Amino acid sequence: MAPTASNGARPIGIFDSGVGGLTVFREIARALPREPLLYLGDSARVPYGTKSPATVIRYSIEAARYLMSRDIRMLVVACNTATAAALPKLQEMLPVPVIGVVEPGARAAVERTSGVVGVIATEGTVKSKAYTTAIKALDPDVEVIESAAPLFVALAEEGWANTHVAREVAEIYLEPLIDHGIDTLVLGCTHYPILRGTIEQVVGSAVHIVDSAETTAQSVKHAIGQSRGVAEPEYHFFVTDAEERFRRIAAEFLEQEIENLELVSL
Amino acid sequence: MAPTASNGARPIGIFDSGVGGLTVFREIARALPREPLLYLGDSARVPYGTKSPATVIRYSIEAARYLMSRDIRMLVVACNTATAAALPKLQEMLPVPVIGVVEPGARAAVERTSGVVGVIATEGTVKSKAYTTAIKALDPDVEVIESAAPLFVALAEEGWANTHVAREVAEIYLEPLIDHGIDTLVLGCTHYPILRGTIEQVVGSAVHIVDSAETTAQSVKHAIGQSRGVAEPEYHFFVTDAEERFRRIAAEFLEQEIENLELVSL
Repeated sequence: MAPTASNGARPIGIFDSGVGGLTVFREIARALPREPLLYLGDSARVPYGTKSPATVIRYSIEAARYLMSRDIRMLVVACNTATAAALPKLQEMLPVPVIGVVEPGARAAVERTSGVVGVIATEGTVKSKAYTTAIKALDPDVEVIESAAPLFVALAEEGWANTHVAREVAEIYLEPLIDHGIDTLVLGCTHYPILRGTIEQVVGSAVHIVDSAETTAQSVKHAIGQSRGVAEPEYHFFVTDAEERFRRIAAEFLEQEIENLELVSL
Repeated sequence: MAPTASNGARPIGIFDSGVGGLTVFREIARALPREPLLYLGDSARVPYGTKSPATVIRYSIEAARYLMSRDIRMLVVACNTATAAALPKLQEMLPVPVIGVVEPGARAAVERTSGVVGVIATEGTVKSKAYTTAIKALDPDVEVIESAAPLFVALAEEGWANTHVAREVAEIYLEPLIDHGIDTLVLGCTHYPILRGTIEQVVGSAVHIVDSAETTAQSVKHAIGQSRGVAEPEYHFFVTDAEERFRRIAAEFLEQEIENLELVSL
């Protein structure tokens, strides 16, 4: 356990299966520019989206324990699959607030929709029906259609977000949702904001986009309350494997080189 | 340790990080229709292609130990990344023959080429330069160009192998190799044979395709020698996670439903 610092200097911990949660990191850094942040990407075991809930819960607990040992003041589960599988368990276990990415996205969707919400996510998140459950809990009259868009992850990670191929893949995934009459689309995987431009071109301006990275950052800001933070907050990144790949993709996702990257074992 | 059976009934063990090695399984079953086969897919930790060599070696040793506990007569490392990282270590450790997928593919490439070989593989395999090393060891005059084609894995797994998108991705990956004048192309990832039709359309009939699943099956047949096998060999499949996903993709890769699928922990 690291020595306990004053509240202003204790970092917010952000956890994801790999690089996708960096979109959440980016939005939290924008919304709370005075807060120190720790990011843990479980790159040795990525992706979570195709794994079973029991496995995802086990991995999430290990990641949370690691970040707790670094004296975080709050945990953000910046991975839809991990949120869908493990959030209640983590909230029950940990002595700090735990915020997931599903509920903020569901809330924003209900605020914006006039009745039909589309959700695109990984196979694991879609199977869990976490978004349908969260949206229906807020407004049972909203119709929700969930659809898996697994190729978007590979396209984002390989730097193909703004290519003709990405556009064509987006058309194939999104046209059934458009035909169904969605008025709001939730980007239910933290990789997908990287493809936001392409997705917007395909769905057109009549469909509201809910970016769960943005909405989660607003929830974190709300939960932090009156923090003074620090003048020059530090960012630290931890990965469980393949630092160089993480460094390369992080530079693309964050549009700047990262410092303080460390390999750890959970 | 399972009781030792007579040689004819002891299975060949085939190991991969996930589903890709099923292309090798399929070719071994075709080449040796009387041999019982065990297939282990480490689906809890897939993919290996983006992980570090040290991690891949550790995972490969655990997988090999599991299959040894099932009394296999031979181990086939049906994963290019694991072969590139861990083959010498496994050959040193295990008391049974260990065959990888790189050397058979390199040998076939050297036999067929008139001078310029292209290799497409995962990022991990390309970084290792395993194919360049293996080909140069056989014939130092052959020119080798290696290139990563990571999106092919997702396209194969999501059932998009024969789509227009796959064709376009193949053109983007392969045109630099064609322009460079390759006369032979090694499919250096066990997922890629699923896209063979699309790849052949792009490179044209003047380029020889080396399918490392096929060439590995021939090496296994040669190493097995005069085995009588059994009249009705059984196939058993073990995965470390997400059986249903494995079952669905296996049915596509093998073009038939699989039986005897079991979840195990390494």
